[in-house]
Amino acid sequence: MQKMDHYRQDFETYLSEKVKTKEPKNLYDPMVYILGLGGKRVRPVLVLMAADICGGDYKKALDAALAIEIFHNFSLIHDDIMDDAPLRRGKETVHELWDVNTGILSGDAMLINAYQLFENYEGETFRELAKLFTKTAMEVCEGQQYDIDFEAREDVGIPEYLKMIEYKTAVLVGASLQMGAIVANASDSCKKQIYEYGRLLGLAFQLQDDYLDVFGDPDSFGKQIGGDIIENKKTFLYLTSLYNSDKKESLQLEHLYSINPKDTTAKVETVRNLFQSSGAAEDTKKEIEKYTQLAFDVLEKLDIPEDRKDLLRSFGGGLMNREV
Amino acid sequence: MQKMDHYRQDFETYLSEKVKTKEPKNLYDPMVYILGLGGKRVRPVLVLMAADICGGDYKKALDAALAIEIFHNFSLIHDDIMDDAPLRRGKETVHELWDVNTGILSGDAMLINAYQLFENYEGETFRELAKLFTKTAMEVCEGQQYDIDFEAREDVGIPEYLKMIEYKTAVLVGASLQMGAIVANASDSCKKQIYEYGRLLGLAFQLQDDYLDVFGDPDSFGKQIGGDIIENKKTFLYLTSLYNSDKKESLQLEHLYSINPKDTTAKVETVRNLFQSSGAAEDTKKEIEKYTQLAFDVLEKLDIPEDRKDLLRSFGGGLMNREV
Repeated sequence: MQKMDHYRQDFETYLSEKVKTKEPKNLYDPMVYILGLGGKRVRPVLVLMAADICGGDYKKALDAALAIEIFHNFSLIHDDIMDDAPLRRGKETVHELWDVNTGILSGDAMLINAYQLFENYEGETFRELAKLFTKTAMEVCEGQQYDIDFEAREDVGIPEYLKMIEYKTAVLVGASLQMGAIVANASDSCKKQIYEYGRLLGLAFQLQDDYLDVFGDPDSFGKQIGGDIIENKKTFLYLTSLYNSDKKESLQLEHLYSINPKDTTAKVETVRNLFQSSGAAEDTKKEIEKYTQLAFDVLEKLDIPEDRKDLLRSFGGGLMNREV
Repeated sequence: MQKMDHYRQDFETYLSEKVKTKEPKNLYDPMVYILGLGGKRVRPVLVLMAADICGGDYKKALDAALAIEIFHNFSLIHDDIMDDAPLRRGKETVHELWDVNTGILSGDAMLINAYQLFENYEGETFRELAKLFTKTAMEVCEGQQYDIDFEAREDVGIPEYLKMIEYKTAVLVGASLQMGAIVANASDSCKKQIYEYGRLLGLAFQLQDDYLDVFGDPDSFGKQIGGDIIENKKTFLYLTSLYNSDKKESLQLEHLYSINPKDTTAKVETVRNLFQSSGAAEDTKKEIEKYTQLAFDVLEKLDIPEDRKDLLRSFGGGLMNREV
């Protein structure tokens, strides 16, 4: 994946040139801090890759890529406040290192700063980028709200859950790719299809994240296995398990999701077994495969030369071939 | 001021048509709630007035006016969280009625929603509105940060204070007027000057607010007289008083601004006297007059027919002839 590394390297260089602190420092320091924590830079790399694939000069997409990464990090700062999370990428969160007020205000400034970066594009490109960004940002907020609402609800349906992860995660993947296509001045159908590829792959990725949280390899997953179970998160696995189970099993699962034992080993083990015996584990795997396949089907129809699709294929393949 | 009432009435009608709740309700209800609390709608009225004065159809400026009002209310929600304020316009603040997380997320959605409203304008108008909005919104965030920073600092200078209120308050008044001018397709010099008029008047207004907080008529001011003194707020009066005073008086004033007595009557009275004896009260009045005059000077140069300037004149006059 040399090309991907190339995009990432160019993006990192651009980010370190452009994201610098200034006065008032308490507003801009947190932005420099969180953007300096690293991460895989998946979204900005997708912007650059899409611009390249669609025949544009991918360096012209650097501002759009930076806008997307700044927006993503804005949402992390505000989400971390809402979740009262102490750590992000193994380091203190912004509201921990500074305080909640600083996190709120710096986040706001980052959201505005993302829009500012689109001003580097002219005419119709500016308009298209800003419009797609606004639509996507609004959906991300709605997804976050649904996620919060679901915590307090006992009757969350599977279609609702899918809509929530689509808004909270998948649309930004689609929008990243479409932004690259916009900068490259691609055709309308190409812009639409590349968005769809990203959206479907984003859904598959999030479902896989749910799956790996329970059944992943502890060494390669990077997060604590069973974290979602410990936090009683109503994931696709949980909702499918409830849907598949008889009354007795459902009650057992609901009970386990109402307790917070000190030693979580037994709870995680029992829930994991219920996910397997109910067929939810298998169904989730099938759902992941379904969305991955749907994404690759879209790729077939995509109106760009075959050899360029390889990048998208290997990106999707790489993303979905994590340790299951 | 029949014309102003007309703008306000049309704006209220438009707002109640356009601002409706939808799913997820916890995201959109707080927006409907805070926009329903009323207020004088100064900023949106200014957008409409400017569009009218510059020869445009002011009804075409309704979306820009709504964007400004939604942005202003977004900043109120987030500021109220930061200030831990229980009340806004005599009613519970959003984070009190719901919770802090709802306030953060609804505020974010409102900021994005403001951008969305500019999509109702074509081409260059869209670009100009979004660009001015972004610049202004960033300055408002910076102003809020300076305001927070000043609370903890003992060495705030008067020029810094003026920059803070310019960013926190005045630029949005200027931007409101300029947005109306943009929608009306006014000349560049007209757009620039009408912004300047608003910025200077906004500065005068904020300084007058500082003054009235201490020397206003309790019946007509609408807020508790002496509130800034009780909260130890470093206003223009306080900073000028320190600047004008000898060592002994300065120490007394600084001491009074370090205590929080239960019965505030004596403190407010003593500080008020110091503000008068130091000449700070008189200096503040002069500063208000200076900025008001500067605003009216800009009006003279403004390239629109004389009779149309009357609306801006009487708006400025009305704003500055509050009970002093």
